[in-house]
Amino acid sequence: MAIAVTPPRGMRDFLPADKAVRERSLGIIRESFRAHGFDEIETPVMEDSARLHSGLGGDNEKLAFAVLKRGLSAADVAAAVEQDDLLSLADLGLRFDLTVPLARFYATHRAALPTVFRSIQIAPVWRAERPQKGRYRQFMQCDIDIIGEAGALAEIELITATAATLDQLGLTGCSIRINDRRILSALLAHWGVPSELTERALIVIDKLDKIGVDGVATELGALGIDAPDLAALLTELGTGGWALGDSAPDWLDPEAFADLTALRAALPGVDLAFDPTLVRGMGYYTGTIFEISHPDLGYSLGGGGRYDGMIGRFLGTDVPACGFSIGFERIVDLLQADAASAQQAVVLVHEKDADPAGLVALKRDLVAGGLRVRLERRTKNLKALLDRAGEAGYGRFAFVTADTQAAGDLDFKPLGA
Amino acid sequence: MAIAVTPPRGMRDFLPADKAVRERSLGIIRESFRAHGFDEIETPVMEDSARLHSGLGGDNEKLAFAVLKRGLSAADVAAAVEQDDLLSLADLGLRFDLTVPLARFYATHRAALPTVFRSIQIAPVWRAERPQKGRYRQFMQCDIDIIGEAGALAEIELITATAATLDQLGLTGCSIRINDRRILSALLAHWGVPSELTERALIVIDKLDKIGVDGVATELGALGIDAPDLAALLTELGTGGWALGDSAPDWLDPEAFADLTALRAALPGVDLAFDPTLVRGMGYYTGTIFEISHPDLGYSLGGGGRYDGMIGRFLGTDVPACGFSIGFERIVDLLQADAASAQQAVVLVHEKDADPAGLVALKRDLVAGGLRVRLERRTKNLKALLDRAGEAGYGRFAFVTADTQAAGDLDFKPLGA
Repeated sequence: MAIAVTPPRGMRDFLPADKAVRERSLGIIRESFRAHGFDEIETPVMEDSARLHSGLGGDNEKLAFAVLKRGLSAADVAAAVEQDDLLSLADLGLRFDLTVPLARFYATHRAALPTVFRSIQIAPVWRAERPQKGRYRQFMQCDIDIIGEAGALAEIELITATAATLDQLGLTGCSIRINDRRILSALLAHWGVPSELTERALIVIDKLDKIGVDGVATELGALGIDAPDLAALLTELGTGGWALGDSAPDWLDPEAFADLTALRAALPGVDLAFDPTLVRGMGYYTGTIFEISHPDLGYSLGGGGRYDGMIGRFLGTDVPACGFSIGFERIVDLLQADAASAQQAVVLVHEKDADPAGLVALKRDLVAGGLRVRLERRTKNLKALLDRAGEAGYGRFAFVTADTQAAGDLDFKPLGA
Repeated sequence: MAIAVTPPRGMRDFLPADKAVRERSLGIIRESFRAHGFDEIETPVMEDSARLHSGLGGDNEKLAFAVLKRGLSAADVAAAVEQDDLLSLADLGLRFDLTVPLARFYATHRAALPTVFRSIQIAPVWRAERPQKGRYRQFMQCDIDIIGEAGALAEIELITATAATLDQLGLTGCSIRINDRRILSALLAHWGVPSELTERALIVIDKLDKIGVDGVATELGALGIDAPDLAALLTELGTGGWALGDSAPDWLDPEAFADLTALRAALPGVDLAFDPTLVRGMGYYTGTIFEISHPDLGYSLGGGGRYDGMIGRFLGTDVPACGFSIGFERIVDLLQADAASAQQAVVLVHEKDADPAGLVALKRDLVAGGLRVRLERRTKNLKALLDRAGEAGYGRFAFVTADTQAAGDLDFKPLGA
């Protein structure tokens, strides 16, 4: 056939074994977030183009897949070329994050929502990025957000719920790095960085993990930022920074530092680490920022922060907001299939000429007894059949023979290792 | 603000109460299908345009949302107009059903799948239809399919799993109407309908529920189909047709009739009704067809059938296949929130100046004890706050006061009705 049979570039199919781990993990995340008083919502995968390109999405706006208007005529298209406005060919686009849709949802439904709204969004997003290892054009995001709470209660609830969810998933050893955008601003002010260079300086600091202290010093120097104590400060920051509760230098925004110290005290069960060089990419953060890290991994497993002033943009009013997103595609690779449920999953191997009605009656009885049951017609290569069932998460098998009258006649044996 | 804040036309937001019923129902469907030995897969929401427009999707192909190629220049677009090929502006499209992606998935991954593959797909699809009541541009489909099984085992397993799933959802009173495309062909042959009119005659018969026997007779007459016994036959069919196991007239394809009789015998626990006028819209069915009906509802709650010859199209070989789809958007309106879980969901009402760390510690203890816990800051209109929490599925509430030290100090009261 002339038609390619691979999924579109940068997008993935999920076979049963992977899909089972994904759905089980999403179910755990959903139930854990719900237990902590967050409520799940859903929005359509498409939003109006004008909304997707309203400036809330930063660089991601450029990566939106655009959906062609229906019923376009050749004249419409020629007019778009004429007016140099190709974007007018698309009226809708696929969302590139869950924050723009949340801002739109909140503007639509505010009257029906609690004063402090704790939302869950577990849903795919799309970005037309150049595909590369570990980066996909369709991927899941798992976001919780608290809208309408200006105080530290929001940060405490978000971090508590996220840490509990990582525990529920069985992901041990995670810690959460925290910082505050006000501390970064104070740091830059201390170095005398002019405000027009703030964003570029933050991008450089964000690379500390990758390029090291010397690299950061060099790149800041290239921007014309040259404070005499730069290398010493970076060394101090790079080796762990100040511990919360320690006295910090006065220029380090004492109020923000005190807020983080209080946050640390309010989260006794969480492995929280202050990192004054933590930046987080998105420009819209206004206060606390946090990121999940794991000692064995060189990348973050999720993050978030306070972004007052953004959720209310479609409403035209300021609304405080804070969110935390679990990096689902990264953590799902660290999770295992559920070994306990494999024991409850059985394969019945039958001959080709077995009576279908009898087979299904047998299966129905086993299902009613709490088992997960797959029928498999016996093939020449029995071992391959059984191996495949084991890989698919089935833990036991039995032969159905002419003598099998009821479930009690089955002799189950373990499958695979 | 100038930007509209409604979802795109024909698409829906889901607020917490509705989303909770949807996710709970999808979870029940997923677990029930899995228990019956089906394995869930996932494909990207987009497929290559060429695949979506390969003829497998019938009329739905026209309804596909098209995704604009990335990086198009004005010259590219002008060339598409010049060549009268506007479709070339799009290289991808959103799937309009789950069957075309399944055929593509099977072609991609056949070597890694069991000889008889039982798939679950629970996922949204998109159709650019004119929006109307009960019809949406984004909606969920819940499909199970058995690929590679030519015998009745496929039909028996599909119908058993679907009937059990409707039971699990608490949908009582459903029955499943069955027919066979071979019986419809025999009926048309008996009436002397020429083959070029087959499809149009089936479309007319499909309207029997809506326009009645006289309407069908009139519309068939308008097609030039005029058998002397038409009205009598339609009356007979319209009043229930033949019961399976009765002797049927010889022209009614005795083999197909015997197959359906055997199917009836193999499904003793299922309310199965033979309906020789059941058509099902899709042209690709080749054998058994079935549809879920409910005595209180004028529309079907799902359906499916055998469609040998279609799944193998991207492979270039024939592969037997049979599928059953639950009409999720229709059944979810009939389902209720889970009353039992409301008792486990509690609201803690606190004063504005309550210590956030203490509140979250209290909440964490209750969550660890198995409750679902939402914090609510006390507002002037306490009743509105509590009513809203009740509507959102919370069953009890308690006040947190200065005297509240631990979970044992809370005095829970019921919420709403």
